[in-house]
Amino acid sequence: MDKEAFFWKIMAGELPPPKVAATLGIEFKAIDADLGTIEVEFQAKTEFANPAGNIQGGFLAAMLDDTMGPALAATLAKGEFAPTINLNVSFEKAARVGTTIQGKGRVLKRGKEICFLVGELYQDGQLVASATATAIVRRSPV
Amino acid sequence: MDKEAFFWKIMAGELPPPKVAATLGIEFKAIDADLGTIEVEFQAKTEFANPAGNIQGGFLAAMLDDTMGPALAATLAKGEFAPTINLNVSFEKAARVGTTIQGKGRVLKRGKEICFLVGELYQDGQLVASATATAIVRRSPV
Repeated sequence: MDKEAFFWKIMAGELPPPKVAATLGIEFKAIDADLGTIEVEFQAKTEFANPAGNIQGGFLAAMLDDTMGPALAATLAKGEFAPTINLNVSFEKAARVGTTIQGKGRVLKRGKEICFLVGELYQDGQLVASATATAIVRRSPV
Repeated sequence: MDKEAFFWKIMAGELPPPKVAATLGIEFKAIDADLGTIEVEFQAKTEFANPAGNIQGGFLAAMLDDTMGPALAATLAKGEFAPTINLNVSFEKAARVGTTIQGKGRVLKRGKEICFLVGELYQDGQLVASATATAIVRRSPV
């Protein structure tokens, strides 16, 4: 765990959080960079509602990306970043508007370059969506 | 094409658009329910920015869901709805904040229940993300 990495600088308040964090209303509940696990919570806002009045699947995908991404980001060194190259989401249950959604993410394999991630979203203890993702670690040239 | 279906009622202004439409800043450019094709445009808002300052992948996933979903919704009859059960997104290129993103969606196969969809997002003519999705047609009991 590198306290100089961008993720930990954000956590320490030394860098501003990404805009998407406020948009999704993320709160970090637990992070273990050694185990590669994370627990987060999101706001199920009315702005994310589909025609049925539930959370649009794409916004659950955004939450899953913002669960698995930080799980990996917590393991990066200074100068590294890790864009997602593939995200595969299954929607198990409709998610309601107006309450919270719990995210659990895990780095399944942290390769030198290619990383495999898994994540799940829960509402009232029930699984609403799950995902796998592939990300690639890049290093800034400086 | 059933003018009494919820999608066409929204298009006609007889039903309110889903909240997610305004959140993503969607504009409908072309819809062909017979061909199952759609062209839309989204706003690449700063609220969707990741730590690198680009559009977070999850929000591109949300845009793809909101491209393919309406392509299918345009083919539904009154009383039918079609939740997405799986969404698989590949991220080809970083998408910048502050401009528009063009979405193209197509119903690959419209089954009685199971439907297969494809979609792509472009920015400045370049592919930024692509997806396949599976949706299932449900009918209201009334």
